[in-house]
Amino acid sequence: MEATQKLVDFILDVDYEDITEEATEVAKQCFLDCIGVSLAGSVLPISEILMSYVRVIGGRSRCSIIGSDVKTSPVNAALVNGTLGHALDYDDMIFPLIGHPTVPVLPAVLAVGEFIGASGKQAITAFSLGFEALCKIGAAVSPSHWYKGFHSTATVGTFGAVAAASKLLNLNEEQMLNAFGIAGSQAAGLKQNFGTMTKPFHAGHAAESGVKAALLAKNGFTAAKNILEGQFGFAKLMADRYDFSVIDKLGNPWDLVDPAPFFKPYPSCGGTHAAMNAMLSLIEEYDIRHDEVESLEAGMNPIAPEELIYIEPKTAFEGKFSMQFCLAILLLEREAGLAQFTNEKVRNPRTMELMKRIKLYVDPEITASVPPEWGDKSAVVKVKLKDGRYYTRKRDIRHLTWDELISKYKDCAKVVLPRDKITKSIEVVMNLQKLENIRQLMELTY
Amino acid sequence: MEATQKLVDFILDVDYEDITEEATEVAKQCFLDCIGVSLAGSVLPISEILMSYVRVIGGRSRCSIIGSDVKTSPVNAALVNGTLGHALDYDDMIFPLIGHPTVPVLPAVLAVGEFIGASGKQAITAFSLGFEALCKIGAAVSPSHWYKGFHSTATVGTFGAVAAASKLLNLNEEQMLNAFGIAGSQAAGLKQNFGTMTKPFHAGHAAESGVKAALLAKNGFTAAKNILEGQFGFAKLMADRYDFSVIDKLGNPWDLVDPAPFFKPYPSCGGTHAAMNAMLSLIEEYDIRHDEVESLEAGMNPIAPEELIYIEPKTAFEGKFSMQFCLAILLLEREAGLAQFTNEKVRNPRTMELMKRIKLYVDPEITASVPPEWGDKSAVVKVKLKDGRYYTRKRDIRHLTWDELISKYKDCAKVVLPRDKITKSIEVVMNLQKLENIRQLMELTY
Repeated sequence: MEATQKLVDFILDVDYEDITEEATEVAKQCFLDCIGVSLAGSVLPISEILMSYVRVIGGRSRCSIIGSDVKTSPVNAALVNGTLGHALDYDDMIFPLIGHPTVPVLPAVLAVGEFIGASGKQAITAFSLGFEALCKIGAAVSPSHWYKGFHSTATVGTFGAVAAASKLLNLNEEQMLNAFGIAGSQAAGLKQNFGTMTKPFHAGHAAESGVKAALLAKNGFTAAKNILEGQFGFAKLMADRYDFSVIDKLGNPWDLVDPAPFFKPYPSCGGTHAAMNAMLSLIEEYDIRHDEVESLEAGMNPIAPEELIYIEPKTAFEGKFSMQFCLAILLLEREAGLAQFTNEKVRNPRTMELMKRIKLYVDPEITASVPPEWGDKSAVVKVKLKDGRYYTRKRDIRHLTWDELISKYKDCAKVVLPRDKITKSIEVVMNLQKLENIRQLMELTY
Repeated sequence: MEATQKLVDFILDVDYEDITEEATEVAKQCFLDCIGVSLAGSVLPISEILMSYVRVIGGRSRCSIIGSDVKTSPVNAALVNGTLGHALDYDDMIFPLIGHPTVPVLPAVLAVGEFIGASGKQAITAFSLGFEALCKIGAAVSPSHWYKGFHSTATVGTFGAVAAASKLLNLNEEQMLNAFGIAGSQAAGLKQNFGTMTKPFHAGHAAESGVKAALLAKNGFTAAKNILEGQFGFAKLMADRYDFSVIDKLGNPWDLVDPAPFFKPYPSCGGTHAAMNAMLSLIEEYDIRHDEVESLEAGMNPIAPEELIYIEPKTAFEGKFSMQFCLAILLLEREAGLAQFTNEKVRNPRTMELMKRIKLYVDPEITASVPPEWGDKSAVVKVKLKDGRYYTRKRDIRHLTWDELISKYKDCAKVVLPRDKITKSIEVVMNLQKLENIRQLMELTY
């Protein structure tokens, strides 16, 4: 049996009870984290542009836009929420995809879920299946698809979104195969658009395309039944190498659990995180002050300098892709949350002076210890103080605990939500399997 | 200067007066032909599915859906009209693209034109520029992009649509560069979906994506400014070979004039047309009756058997891709319009018997005389009659005259429009440059 058919069979067969408790727990973390970063994203300029677009085109007022009381169509809601969720580059990642798994899938779940009035269990099921479909397809075409220049979050994300939307809309086998086919002809997203608003748009577009494909297929729209593996299908056209044997591992393990998404503790490029963990650990242990530092080096694998291209960043967005800024701001403020990533702080003379003393280099030991596509996971930091002291520390990226995720959510949500809605929304997500109607959750997101 | 910038400069610089009279005349033919085939497409089952989708998602009621009195958003109108226009595979083609040039562009022009209340001159200008952008980009990546497995009508079509929509919305230079960037991350469409409803969806999706990109860019959405030629841009990722030197020939000549679109006289695959012309010529000259035919052979280049894969077609759609059916129906009815391409006629025992006597073969002389990617243009037909007579004839595809285009339009339009609207709409299109508001044309399309 071929990959697309196997995937569809899996999505048709699995119900809430089949998803492990551990996977369900992580799914809930994905909901909370993604809604949080979307709330934080909803106050950015990109949000205003999207709202203008929604006003211009209109849409049946059934679905919520996070951070706003405007209601719109499921297609628009998926587009806007997906884009907001990725706008800060603060949403979760997963390494085998080399991309962001939740942000193309969850907005499709929320939009369709709200549209049909799905229960919390239905939403968890659809999300888990979309996440799983995305991760397995991503693993099948990775890393070739990414290195070729496609933004996997966008392209592979479309299949994650259609999987989730198809499950919620209860498509039958033929409809679901068609939905995947329609989705495949919308799967797009070029890395050339990195560093612009179109990068987050990729996630929104994937969510929107998945919802659209599922709605069309539900009504009888036809498409190829072998879009993933066919001669002129997704993998063959858009990856130089691929291997669909990973499809046989659907749900075994669930990618939600192993390798599990990486929730970002800092709103910066994943490539900065391991070094930031090492830096924080040294700062805390030795009480290092910024004016004590003579020089500072962060050693990583050869991928890092290609991602972290801003040595003298000028904007908050460039600061996210600058090892210099990320380490400097930790020395200056001992934290790196939303409040630290601002144009003002990047351009502050004290920050700029400190950044000059910070270097990123390729470390042979780090390079040898992890494959390049997993290289973001480890870094070594070496700090030399003016009084002659010298410290070094190696750290990996690290998974956030529920408590830390909740702190991050509160930090993000407070830019929009009053305190009672923050408390209530956390409670609802943590008990999502008990929720009668996803609309009750969406009412707490603005 | 790079390709994207050159293209945008051209679109910004050219106004109605800069477009040659000859190009303007062909543009009007494109309008009439595409509206006609869309009207014919609007009574197919695919139309009902699209209307259900539009009802579900809703949208600001400003733009017309061809063949219906439902009004919707410019985005939805572009999607639906583009899909209807390609549903019968009866819309125009252009060889350097190996695809259909009008159907991704015109629906964007009509949708945005109606939305802003554009004049006929504005609509002609936007269409001509979209057509030109599409053809030049298509030539730059052809034939590699097509042979790789991408449906150029869909992918390259997105750029044609965004060019047209951007011109109508009067985007400035930076906005237009951004619009092209956003469009590039939506450019998608896999040949795997050929033979399904998703093939025509490709044209609608391209039109929709172009409109969406232009609307977002107009409001300040940002994207890469070098989406066509960049390191991780469209050409590099989606074609094995490409050459943007053709961009230097923008408007010189206009592709509308040279090579000019090929308007289909028959609602069947372009690969059947040259042989059908030869067959009709023999039928008329020698008054051949179907029951006189002992055997019939159509000789073409090696591409033809790969396109015309249905030797024993069972449905009208398969009949479009069957040399056997196309020649048989000409012998039986002496014409091949919409009335001939029905399931009933394909399955008629008399047709089925006749099809058995018809063969498609690869002819060395035809193969030697035209390059493979232009091979659809010529065919030789050899017919042996029961009384011993033997005739042979070679023909190319041929361009329709205004009179023939009008006949085709009437044949298509009559499935929806009353006679007075048919007459009036022909008059309006033939004098499009005098039209005050494109809405007056759209009122005649349902």
